[in-house]
Amino acid sequence: MINSVGIVKAKKFNCNEKLVLSCGDVLSSFTLIYETYGSLNAKKNNAILIPHALSGNHHVAGKYKKEDKHSGWWDNMVGPNKPIDTNKFYVIGVNNLGGNDGSTSSKSINPKTKKVWGSSFPIVTVKDWVASQKKLTEHLGIDKLFAIVGGSLGGMQAIQWSLDFPDYVNKVICIASAPNLTAQNIAFNEVARQAILKDENFSKGNFYNHNKKPKNGLRLARMLGHITYLSNDTMDKKFGRKLVNNKFNYDFSTNYEIESYLNYQGDKFAESFDANTYLRMTKALDYFDLEKNYKKKLSSLFKKIKADYLVVSFSSDWRFPPSRSKEIVKALLDNNINVSYAEIEAETGHDAFLLASNHYHNLISNYLNQKI
Amino acid sequence: MINSVGIVKAKKFNCNEKLVLSCGDVLSSFTLIYETYGSLNAKKNNAILIPHALSGNHHVAGKYKKEDKHSGWWDNMVGPNKPIDTNKFYVIGVNNLGGNDGSTSSKSINPKTKKVWGSSFPIVTVKDWVASQKKLTEHLGIDKLFAIVGGSLGGMQAIQWSLDFPDYVNKVICIASAPNLTAQNIAFNEVARQAILKDENFSKGNFYNHNKKPKNGLRLARMLGHITYLSNDTMDKKFGRKLVNNKFNYDFSTNYEIESYLNYQGDKFAESFDANTYLRMTKALDYFDLEKNYKKKLSSLFKKIKADYLVVSFSSDWRFPPSRSKEIVKALLDNNINVSYAEIEAETGHDAFLLASNHYHNLISNYLNQKI
Repeated sequence: MINSVGIVKAKKFNCNEKLVLSCGDVLSSFTLIYETYGSLNAKKNNAILIPHALSGNHHVAGKYKKEDKHSGWWDNMVGPNKPIDTNKFYVIGVNNLGGNDGSTSSKSINPKTKKVWGSSFPIVTVKDWVASQKKLTEHLGIDKLFAIVGGSLGGMQAIQWSLDFPDYVNKVICIASAPNLTAQNIAFNEVARQAILKDENFSKGNFYNHNKKPKNGLRLARMLGHITYLSNDTMDKKFGRKLVNNKFNYDFSTNYEIESYLNYQGDKFAESFDANTYLRMTKALDYFDLEKNYKKKLSSLFKKIKADYLVVSFSSDWRFPPSRSKEIVKALLDNNINVSYAEIEAETGHDAFLLASNHYHNLISNYLNQKI
Repeated sequence: MINSVGIVKAKKFNCNEKLVLSCGDVLSSFTLIYETYGSLNAKKNNAILIPHALSGNHHVAGKYKKEDKHSGWWDNMVGPNKPIDTNKFYVIGVNNLGGNDGSTSSKSINPKTKKVWGSSFPIVTVKDWVASQKKLTEHLGIDKLFAIVGGSLGGMQAIQWSLDFPDYVNKVICIASAPNLTAQNIAFNEVARQAILKDENFSKGNFYNHNKKPKNGLRLARMLGHITYLSNDTMDKKFGRKLVNNKFNYDFSTNYEIESYLNYQGDKFAESFDANTYLRMTKALDYFDLEKNYKKKLSSLFKKIKADYLVVSFSSDWRFPPSRSKEIVKALLDNNINVSYAEIEAETGHDAFLLASNHYHNLISNYLNQKI
């Protein structure tokens, strides 16, 4: 595994300090699952946090076992001599509160009731995530983060970090993100939520003791998600109007390759992802609304930010198009914050932030390596 | 009701000739429900056919009773002194085969089995619809259609008419349509279909004898549809990030106005629309593929067309964007067909074809009135 962080192990951070959430609920304690790659330097100033997007987790790079089919979700970006170079940086991946992969969530035991949280697990926000991640970085002995690098919902967490802990963040790389969701973004989330909420096996969120999981709802949510991750052009090039068997079936079986792709993605996701987590992740996206939360315009609010910024967008991303990134850039410039912006020509849509390309990778690498 | 066709009545056309469908099945007889407005002139050459789109029907204009809340779906376009002027033209609206509103469909009795067709009703195509509509126009004594005017899926029927019966069509007005669906279009259709097919109450399409209908699936399909009918800008202007009660609910109840709108539209639709019809309408869209069906490129295929064309698109329509209309125009121009094309500036997305605007209405009116 050349240029790979190699075999990694997930770790557990049990925080026994209480956490007051945006919704008003209080978690008396919580657990975050995380991974680290590279080493924290003596000055404790080379740490890079990578918050995840909607369906991501702490497993950013490497493999758990040699024979694992897949590496972490951003393995092309993180590793020795990669754009986020683990020879230089101490990189942290973390599964968010309410997440799918081991951090305290609906699947956990509520210490008060000794029962599974299920639907009673609170709606967590980007702000809550950042507060919990701060506890983790303190636990890891980090004095100040060298950078936070996040794409999509991860970018929102990066912005929130630079607002809530301005003295703790050196650089922000905010990729394929937005200052908030549009009505269309919320609309897609709502269809996904309704698919899950109305699934007969959802059982109002308390399905853990049943044999059945709300897989139909989850697979619809994921199929819909995939449409918004890909550009129209990519879909046309990759699938077009290709039929799986070159003829019309004249029934409702899988007939087009795009149908086959979506159904496969949906099925795979529904096997492994938690419905309560999905619902909460979409709500965190919807509720990321800095102007409403702080009762200030973005330009006025960004006065607090001390970090330098690199903002990156992709030309064919219609979920979080370049225009949304430019709103962030504008509000940063209004405050004379040191901001670089790049709109990368890419035809792969929102997914481009996860895919390797020279221009993109050089950009990240150069930005991170300009001073250290 | 000034400028209205007034009180109208749906009529029934029972065709006892057999109809061989694209899928190979044969209907020994079929019924089409239709309406007419205006009068057929002595020369029988002033008839305009208006085929409907995905969820439309034969009720194009007027009301059934004075107290009806709503008029027909294109009442702003069709009536005395309206763009499609019923003082001059004899206008025909028809519910398609397999449709929701009375024409032979999954809800009908299969004459062979004496039982409801249900899921055994065949997958019908645009070509089948046109063949059945031709029987209707002959029954009405029409020698040649003055025009066919269709939007969206209706536009596809208009194109098919001009190909299959080139000597029978004088003019085609093809609005907000496309020569075929893109992979993204098919993808949205597939998510809608899966929502219905996987609804526990769908019962493999044979739900008519049950008390329960697959309403959850239908409402999801409709919610998703609505997202694609509206432009991003319209959604932002109309709903934006407005909350129904100005606060975050921190639960999964309706919180944003866009959610309220979509859920309302979904519920309303699920009450009145047939799931088997919805499935079949989306398939007719997917299977509209002239190049595949005729094994010819559009330019070569369009040699057969004798009708004049007006092609209309709307700037913010991302379901069937102007580029798709231009593909039609290009193939017509390749054959020196008399074609006019207009891309109308409209911010309302695909829905613009149903909405009144001066530029749009004048365009249709002028085109229809240039010669008669």
